[in-house]
Amino acid sequence: MSSFKLAAREYSQQDTVVKIPGPRESVFIGAGYLTVIAGPCAVENQPDYLEIAQILKSIGVHVLRAGLFKPRTSPYSFKGLGGEGLKIVEEARRVTGLPVLTEVMDVRDIEDLYPSIDIFQVGSRNMQNFSLLEELGKTDKPVLLKRGLAATIEEWLLAAEYLLDRGNRKIILCERGIRTFEPYARNIVDIGAVPLIKHLSHLPIMVDPSHATGRAEMVGPVAKAAVAAGADGILVEVHQHPEAALSDGRQSLTPDQFRNLFAKIKDLAKLEEKIML
Amino acid sequence: MSSFKLAAREYSQQDTVVKIPGPRESVFIGAGYLTVIAGPCAVENQPDYLEIAQILKSIGVHVLRAGLFKPRTSPYSFKGLGGEGLKIVEEARRVTGLPVLTEVMDVRDIEDLYPSIDIFQVGSRNMQNFSLLEELGKTDKPVLLKRGLAATIEEWLLAAEYLLDRGNRKIILCERGIRTFEPYARNIVDIGAVPLIKHLSHLPIMVDPSHATGRAEMVGPVAKAAVAAGADGILVEVHQHPEAALSDGRQSLTPDQFRNLFAKIKDLAKLEEKIML
Amino acid sequence: MSSFKLAAREYSQQDTVVKIPGPRESVFIGAGYLTVIAGPCAVENQPDYLEIAQILKSIGVHVLRAGLFKPRTSPYSFKGLGGEGLKIVEEARRVTGLPVLTEVMDVRDIEDLYPSIDIFQVGSRNMQNFSLLEELGKTDKPVLLKRGLAATIEEWLLAAEYLLDRGNRKIILCERGIRTFEPYARNIVDIGAVPLIKHLSHLPIMVDPSHATGRAEMVGPVAKAAVAAGADGILVEVHQHPEAALSDGRQSLTPDQFRNLFAKIKDLAKLEEKIML
Amino acid sequence: MSSFKLAAREYSQQDTVVKIPGPRESVFIGAGYLTVIAGPCAVENQPDYLEIAQILKSIGVHVLRAGLFKPRTSPYSFKGLGGEGLKIVEEARRVTGLPVLTEVMDVRDIEDLYPSIDIFQVGSRNMQNFSLLEELGKTDKPVLLKRGLAATIEEWLLAAEYLLDRGNRKIILCERGIRTFEPYARNIVDIGAVPLIKHLSHLPIMVDPSHATGRAEMVGPVAKAAVAAGADGILVEVHQHPEAALSDGRQSLTPDQFRNLFAKIKDLAKLEEKIML
Repeated sequence: MSSFKLAAREYSQQDTVVKIPGPRESVFIGAGYLTVIAGPCAVENQPDYLEIAQILKSIGVHVLRAGLFKPRTSPYSFKGLGGEGLKIVEEARRVTGLPVLTEVMDVRDIEDLYPSIDIFQVGSRNMQNFSLLEELGKTDKPVLLKRGLAATIEEWLLAAEYLLDRGNRKIILCERGIRTFEPYARNIVDIGAVPLIKHLSHLPIMVDPSHATGRAEMVGPVAKAAVAAGADGILVEVHQHPEAALSDGRQSLTPDQFRNLFAKIKDLAKLEEKIML
Repeated sequence: MSSFKLAAREYSQQDTVVKIPGPRESVFIGAGYLTVIAGPCAVENQPDYLEIAQILKSIGVHVLRAGLFKPRTSPYSFKGLGGEGLKIVEEARRVTGLPVLTEVMDVRDIEDLYPSIDIFQVGSRNMQNFSLLEELGKTDKPVLLKRGLAATIEEWLLAAEYLLDRGNRKIILCERGIRTFEPYARNIVDIGAVPLIKHLSHLPIMVDPSHATGRAEMVGPVAKAAVAAGADGILVEVHQHPEAALSDGRQSLTPDQFRNLFAKIKDLAKLEEKIML
Repeated sequence: MSSFKLAAREYSQQDTVVKIPGPRESVFIGAGYLTVIAGPCAVENQPDYLEIAQILKSIGVHVLRAGLFKPRTSPYSFKGLGGEGLKIVEEARRVTGLPVLTEVMDVRDIEDLYPSIDIFQVGSRNMQNFSLLEELGKTDKPVLLKRGLAATIEEWLLAAEYLLDRGNRKIILCERGIRTFEPYARNIVDIGAVPLIKHLSHLPIMVDPSHATGRAEMVGPVAKAAVAAGADGILVEVHQHPEAALSDGRQSLTPDQFRNLFAKIKDLAKLEEKIML
Repeated sequence: MSSFKLAAREYSQQDTVVKIPGPRESVFIGAGYLTVIAGPCAVENQPDYLEIAQILKSIGVHVLRAGLFKPRTSPYSFKGLGGEGLKIVEEARRVTGLPVLTEVMDVRDIEDLYPSIDIFQVGSRNMQNFSLLEELGKTDKPVLLKRGLAATIEEWLLAAEYLLDRGNRKIILCERGIRTFEPYARNIVDIGAVPLIKHLSHLPIMVDPSHATGRAEMVGPVAKAAVAAGADGILVEVHQHPEAALSDGRQSLTPDQFRNLFAKIKDLAKLEEKIML
């Protein structure tokens, strides 16, 4: 595994910390910080998104999920509000003062999203969309790179290498479950990927227990496991009314469930001697 | 599995046949035709590509592989000649009179490639690059859609549905191996996908034994298996000097090996009562 | 992959042919023979089993499947007639003159089964039941060793090595599908395993398309693919009334469906220059 | 998933706690206890085993691993001392006062092992060795049932059902990693299996991070993740001289590494409000 260079532990013994300036205060990911990103699967409409954003702010979340473009397996599913929803995201960002994370799926959308968002997300289906990686590699915005559904650790780090090689050094990895034969949960969280990435790379690694499991009752235990294994943070889906969500309601926590989990994550962070702002 | 509509067998009891006009004579894929697409993994330079193109023409191949943009796991690998190589492809197409197949990875390349090539290929890594699918769905050129490395049959047919839904009905599926735990061969050809696709859909299905196995000694037996299982054709990598190829030489057949295989495929096609022009 | 010795191609450039003496005439597996083993999933009762045995004999089948002990995922499923059914198998063997194949799951059953059956089958769940392998390795009866559900090629050959190392050289490998993420068919036939085994070993390899796919409509195409890929034979489930079978009816062919398939296999065997007695 | 009955959560809302009498004091697994089982992969000789047993006792371990029969992929690997080693295990048990866990692979060994050991282990390769399950189901000794390498949650619970159905209610499940496409670590720990089993069943579940990962540097983080996810305990391999171990040295912790981990597990157990004797 000497195929990746800039992503390799040999390149930097010091852990990378990604600084996200944000509209008011800076947020940090990696190198001793424990960061929580939360929000609904998709921005559905202005009042609901502003409400959940303020609830999450009050709980202590560091970054808001702001899904506008949703990659959907079927062309007939709800695909997000797209560029139309950007104003809603800008408003939530302004009101809460929190930085926002948005998935980008098309190179032609980068320019429009750039001024309004704080972290670009590359989703698992696009982990090897090399044109997209190359274009994002030319920007100076942080990129959260999700692991592909069936990507090896090496392929994942080589995808990060595409970004790093073009000049962008603000890369955050995110384990979101891999595909196996087990039909019960949606995917299997590769918990061992956390220590492995720490061993092989200097890049921060987060875990998304919501997309990975697809089941709300599993989100809490897996989120806690991620922190105990040494992850730099978690991404969690939260929705006021999971049963009415336009996408992925089955895996969303309610604000109350999430508040409880947040407190437990805080206790674990303390035990792990992580800074949780 | 009622999620795909236009791709479903229920939509058309009659098998779809895709007509590829070609520079001189038309080629057909599906509905009783047995079609062979062959060529090197990538176009490397003009003299070599013209030579192999003429050899393949003389053997009886129906369509030329003309790889210009190569999706590579590492940013440091040879990525193909890109647009620079298009003139070489045009020349080979003119000289042999054979239609050409080229992979497209970026929506911004579609327009440039459109006038010069006969079939767009969507590679396995881009099977769920929905922006690319939607743009190709708006063209009137045949699209060969490779199955994702870890895509279910349903996800694959839904990716085809993205193309169909935008208006393009000239879709050809291509099984190219799925990822499993077995380390010996590169991937495992899902041979059962051939009868399954015939059962679930009216679209033609081809098999690529070269990328799937990654080993020249397995290409012939798997190609024959594909035809015996009912596939509408095969894609095979052929290179004058496999050991010197800039990419994927390990899996390429020499012209002599390929000539032998072509003869056996002809015998099988006859047994299966397929038309092999 | 130098871990197996007696099973390795280096040990014998000549393909192994396993001779099964049988009650009347000998049957051969490997080295140019194409052998068909067929029968219901389980022996259910005397009249039905004798009837299907005679039908299969009349079609030309070489060996009868005679399932007595059925490994079942649930303790509440039908587990076969066990030793009680042995008399039925002996009768069918006597009447048809065909050798019989029976799965053995417990070392304590070997002695009782020994005089009445012709080939011991080790099922996929027991591929690494090393006690069972060692005991069967001490007998002089042919053993058909199914590949484990998630066994690598190397592990499979090492399981064969357990048998060979104890002295039994009459080993037949059988690919029966591996477990993957794809939910539609029960398992995925690793068709490439056929040329791989031929490359790595001198042992004969058969394919079981019935257990592998779990769907009758896929059995024919996959059986044909196996022969075209170079397999030494196939195992097929046949039942007079698949819809009433006590186990695995969904994947059984009717006698008429099987008769058609048998004819096609004959044509393929001829093309492959195999001897099909 | 209503196929298992006695193993199902519906059968008992109360979590099962398995009492292991032990030579001096009782140990409990499940229902609020956090239990640590540790020891070398295999008993190699008397002085080394007695030494490590006493070290582990002094650290606070609850149960000793006492591997006598080692299932090995190759017939040419070290297979353990077998019955010869039983006296060493009895001595270690007497000296430390700790109960011992031993894998049993053959129904014919159960009787001999019965008087000397405290917990029978069924290894992953034998999870569906139904004869073995049925015989162990007739005893009154606790059984630790490892998940098969490619077993679904449902198949695992049905294997437990075989044991329960025969009368043995002292069943402990153990997640030990599943096989996937990822080549770096040996297997992938399915961390989500912990909350899933808690949701679907009343049986205790432990996690074995040593066999699962195959790499000592991953054992600590994965062990901690298991406890944070709600597991009832962990199994860890410890060896005085991992580099000289006759089997699996690559994944063994040294006594010092293990002592550190044990302290961290204690902190986590406290946070999780588990009793760690």
